Amino acid sequence: MDTNRIVVVGGVAAGMSAASAAKRITPDTEVVALERGEFVSYASCGIPYYLSEVVKDHLNLVAVTAEEFREKRGIDLRTMHEVKSIDAEKKIVEVLDREADNTYELEWSKLVIATGARAFRPPIEGMDAPNVFMVHSLQDGLRVMGFIRDRNPQRAVILGAGYVGLELAETFRARGMVVSIVQRSDRIMRGLEPEVGEKVVEELDRQGVILQRNTAVKSFERNNGGEVKRVITDKGEIEVDIVVAAVGVKPNTELAQKAGIEIGKTGAIATNDRMQTCIPDIYSAGDCAEAWHRILERPEYAPLGTTANKQGRIAGTNAAGSDERFPGVIGSMVAKVFDLAVARTGLGLKEAIDSGFDAASNTITARSRAHYYPGAKPITISLILDSKTGRLLGAQLTGADGTAKRNDVLATAITSGMTIGEIEYLDLCYAPPYSPVYDPILVAARQARKKLHK
Amino acid sequence: MDTNRIVVVGGVAAGMSAASAAKRITPDTEVVALERGEFVSYASCGIPYYLSEVVKDHLNLVAVTAEEFREKRGIDLRTMHEVKSIDAEKKIVEVLDREADNTYELEWSKLVIATGARAFRPPIEGMDAPNVFMVHSLQDGLRVMGFIRDRNPQRAVILGAGYVGLELAETFRARGMVVSIVQRSDRIMRGLEPEVGEKVVEELDRQGVILQRNTAVKSFERNNGGEVKRVITDKGEIEVDIVVAAVGVKPNTELAQKAGIEIGKTGAIATNDRMQTCIPDIYSAGDCAEAWHRILERPEYAPLGTTANKQGRIAGTNAAGSDERFPGVIGSMVAKVFDLAVARTGLGLKEAIDSGFDAASNTITARSRAHYYPGAKPITISLILDSKTGRLLGAQLTGADGTAKRNDVLATAITSGMTIGEIEYLDLCYAPPYSPVYDPILVAARQARKKLHK
Repeated sequence: MDTNRIVVVGGVAAGMSAASAAKRITPDTEVVALERGEFVSYASCGIPYYLSEVVKDHLNLVAVTAEEFREKRGIDLRTMHEVKSIDAEKKIVEVLDREADNTYELEWSKLVIATGARAFRPPIEGMDAPNVFMVHSLQDGLRVMGFIRDRNPQRAVILGAGYVGLELAETFRARGMVVSIVQRSDRIMRGLEPEVGEKVVEELDRQGVILQRNTAVKSFERNNGGEVKRVITDKGEIEVDIVVAAVGVKPNTELAQKAGIEIGKTGAIATNDRMQTCIPDIYSAGDCAEAWHRILERPEYAPLGTTANKQGRIAGTNAAGSDERFPGVIGSMVAKVFDLAVARTGLGLKEAIDSGFDAASNTITARSRAHYYPGAKPITISLILDSKTGRLLGAQLTGADGTAKRNDVLATAITSGMTIGEIEYLDLCYAPPYSPVYDPILVAARQARKKLHK
Repeated sequence: MDTNRIVVVGGVAAGMSAASAAKRITPDTEVVALERGEFVSYASCGIPYYLSEVVKDHLNLVAVTAEEFREKRGIDLRTMHEVKSIDAEKKIVEVLDREADNTYELEWSKLVIATGARAFRPPIEGMDAPNVFMVHSLQDGLRVMGFIRDRNPQRAVILGAGYVGLELAETFRARGMVVSIVQRSDRIMRGLEPEVGEKVVEELDRQGVILQRNTAVKSFERNNGGEVKRVITDKGEIEVDIVVAAVGVKPNTELAQKAGIEIGKTGAIATNDRMQTCIPDIYSAGDCAEAWHRILERPEYAPLGTTANKQGRIAGTNAAGSDERFPGVIGSMVAKVFDLAVARTGLGLKEAIDSGFDAASNTITARSRAHYYPGAKPITISLILDSKTGRLLGAQLTGADGTAKRNDVLATAITSGMTIGEIEYLDLCYAPPYSPVYDPILVAARQARKKLHK
């Protein structure tokens, strides 16, 4: 039997983007989305703000509800339905209806695998303790919130100083807790240039967060109820009521792997720029898949909501018979760390050197607005460039005012291959409330050129 | 006698940038800067904020004082010295020392003309009344402030709805005045796309500003003291205590013209990309000079502080024997209009069509932040593109949150020749406090592509 059905495995960012795009392009084709959990299309990035009660209701994090997908978008969305296996030959998925507890088969003509990622579980005994959490899914967020409301923890230890760890530090400080971050290496947010990293460390310090870098957790000390009450590190001990591990994620590739789909060197599902896997009728998108890195010119594993949404849309569009290409990523990200935005795009210096670039970096600090206009704040900008050509390879910024979008200006410059000489003379808009007459971006480019390029 | 002296005519933005750059590059060369007024290196763009007392002291608008130029930068800066003529053959300027009231000659090896612009004076009888002002120089600003403090005017009429007129409307409303803007055409800020312009009109209305477009001033009615008490338009009459004309500027080219220097079609001084005039030892920069327009590929007259500073630096650098090129402008500007930023870059639709592009535009409104994050505001973005190639030609944005820097992202995209298809997949950074997962820029590009390009 020749079915004409697009099946999407996974209903969070990439999955629902794929299902929506597919249905939009071919409204007459049946589109089924299978999500093993209860929630679809929610913003994991919003969980820290739900936990701090900046966002009052977890349902506010849901962009489009299951009902809307079904009724307005015409997608056959099945929540609590888990795909157990994929048969690429017969074009069938085996599905477990978790509520009814029965299993059925579903034929597909095109399949989109958007199984996402799961939080990496540090190999420490006691990770299963009732006061130890990982924060990845909305379900995780609800569990943490339940614990906070029941138990009113006063002392938090966060494992990991990536952007999630930093955001959670703000969350827990906002709730009045004593907060420690334990980070194995000395890196913050995948490694920042020293002057940028220092500003972030200063801000954490000013906000009363205890940051312990180059510190390894050796064990958890538990009480009679099995709860972790003390985190033992190679530097000492930290008393604790709640532990959250935020040490990265890994792609959910098991289903794909068993179906014979190629996994890339990064450990995520390999695709081409149409988001097709090695099996042409099977697409993959989002946190389970690789993303082409435009500067490194190779696939990378860079799971972020922006990428997941774009890839999902492209996978769905192509599964529905259109042709759209994903040009790739350059590693842009931003986090709010208390009063600072910390943003980065492109390569870090070490990453650039390790990848064979003759790279150098320079850092400046400048004001965000005209010197006489109220509310001007310092912005620190590191530029990483190819010393030979002057081409911008990366940027890192931190500041309080207009930092994220300045990062995007530099992301756009990197994408188009601009040199710092070209960036120095960009015609950026100016008015005293928004920037000095020479925007910090122009100052950064000029200083970098003077020091490094000619 | 063969002198080695760089003389700069004019001491505001371009002039002092040129003098500073020249001295930095050749510290042993004598650099003389001649400024006819009292103030140097001040920010005219800050005058509206001085008049609203957001900036308390007019001296705060001075970036670098005359003493600092003399003592720290080693520039022979002569304020109240007016150049009366330039002899390009003999390489001499004739200078009037306005305080001593004597005239002297000064030899130069290289000359930089940075005579700036002056406010355009509308041809209305009564423009010389004691309560009618133009706001261009810091001296103008002081005069307006003196009048406000002495006379406490309650009703203001602003002639012109360009960015200065709009900024002054906010200034005068902040002082509690009844404010009318009278604009001859229906254009605001050089003409905005209808949906963008409408947002600005709504904001003016919400803030109690009476905007009269398509309205021509016919005459002023004056009282016995010679003050204008009523502005007579072709639509009616407006009672008034203070009138400010902000209907644009024109370049001060008289000195250059008399010296035989070529004036471009725009009416401003013509230069090459090294900021050299037709006489190679004479440079020109800033509001008296043309600027190369990178999209129109011809010189334009676009007097703005950003351009003046860059051109001045390049003129000074080259006068000192270096080689630096000005790549040109694309027409980026932004103004704060009460709670909105209004920004634009590149060509407007009409300008694009008039210049021979097969141009079209599309407008969207989207949220500035994740829907669940507090402080999200609408941003309206118009994109103007070449329908044939999809290349972005221009953008106009208005909103309350992150608008100016989003304009700069699009300015960077325009500069690099990006198509909207490329912009749609830019890897912009995302966190809920700074943008939705699809930044409004990406939404605008996608919608424009869907509607206009394919």
